[in-house]
Amino acid sequence: MAEHKKVSSVVIRRLPRYYRYLGDLLAKGIKRISSKELSELMNVTASQIRQDFNCFGGFGQQGYGYNVEYLYNEISDILGIRKGRSMIIVGTGNLGMSIAGYSNFKKRGFNLVGLFDHNPALYGKEVSGIKIMPVTELKNFLQGHNVDIAVLTMPKESVQEVLPVIKGNVKGIWNFSHKEIPQEDGLSVENVHLSDSLMTLSCKIGRNEKLGK
Amino acid sequence: MAEHKKVSSVVIRRLPRYYRYLGDLLAKGIKRISSKELSELMNVTASQIRQDFNCFGGFGQQGYGYNVEYLYNEISDILGIRKGRSMIIVGTGNLGMSIAGYSNFKKRGFNLVGLFDHNPALYGKEVSGIKIMPVTELKNFLQGHNVDIAVLTMPKESVQEVLPVIKGNVKGIWNFSHKEIPQEDGLSVENVHLSDSLMTLSCKIGRNEKLGK
Repeated sequence: MAEHKKVSSVVIRRLPRYYRYLGDLLAKGIKRISSKELSELMNVTASQIRQDFNCFGGFGQQGYGYNVEYLYNEISDILGIRKGRSMIIVGTGNLGMSIAGYSNFKKRGFNLVGLFDHNPALYGKEVSGIKIMPVTELKNFLQGHNVDIAVLTMPKESVQEVLPVIKGNVKGIWNFSHKEIPQEDGLSVENVHLSDSLMTLSCKIGRNEKLGK
Repeated sequence: MAEHKKVSSVVIRRLPRYYRYLGDLLAKGIKRISSKELSELMNVTASQIRQDFNCFGGFGQQGYGYNVEYLYNEISDILGIRKGRSMIIVGTGNLGMSIAGYSNFKKRGFNLVGLFDHNPALYGKEVSGIKIMPVTELKNFLQGHNVDIAVLTMPKESVQEVLPVIKGNVKGIWNFSHKEIPQEDGLSVENVHLSDSLMTLSCKIGRNEKLGK
């Protein structure tokens, strides 16, 4: 089992990409891979790979390469994938529905256990085997169920109402609501700003244009 | 106008967040802000802010603080927001629809000009004033229109078919398709893996659990 010393959030943020690439290698039946081969595949330096893996005890010997299955399983465990996480989605607009319907999440151990919305027209509608419930039932639901993650895909304005109900009852918030939620003791948060990624793309395009590319 | 020397992608990736915070300050009528105040608001160090801004010529004087409107406009220009970008969406499932309907993109200069899908049942359906067209018409459309960005919100399997049609006809790809597309000369790419963010959250939760928080 990997060590759990202090690891920077930058390294943690890189783990899912390793996980995806190792999953592809495993599916192709590849058993061992050197940091050099992995680095060429993933377009990062071999030294970065070794440094990242050293944060978790190394995962294997340089020179002999890494055992792909072992590495995949270790990273799965660090990401909490084999253990599994239960999650609810609050806000069943297009984005919420897109997340609810994404089968890869289930494959990665994220089990949808509840869907909530403000729109009475949606109450009782079934999505991925789960019935949409009113947001007013959120508190009761959280007290009666073990929920790890709340996914917030609702407008910014509704967050203030839902946040006090959620805090203390979940371990993490996956927040798409355009209102940044700060991390707290015992509450992990990932704030996703899709528009940041689009603006970054626009910036890259602008810099290419300046270079005349 | 800001200088355009070589700037690391890490700094570029941080610009949209500055842009969002400065927009909020501007909306509140705040005219000047010091790097210290901005750093407390954004929860980053003042020295990182100064370093980031120095990549673009500095944007103003330390001690006197930054002129919020000037800074906002300069960053808008670097992000290509005031110039505007035209974009099409290929794949009009829930995620594509969510992006098509997101009014903030328009406010930030991203103008939707085309929607494409494989599903004949959707052809002609109007979303945000744009009619959904068959993917088979994509080539003609790109040759007849000036499109900056193609947003790919379709399954991984369809990407290979669409990619050759898109390359050479757009300046950037905003890719949600789970198939990583490499950057090329003259083609900027942002690969978005939503599940990476969810796995990162799960990892943070796991590390909190180890610490007994």
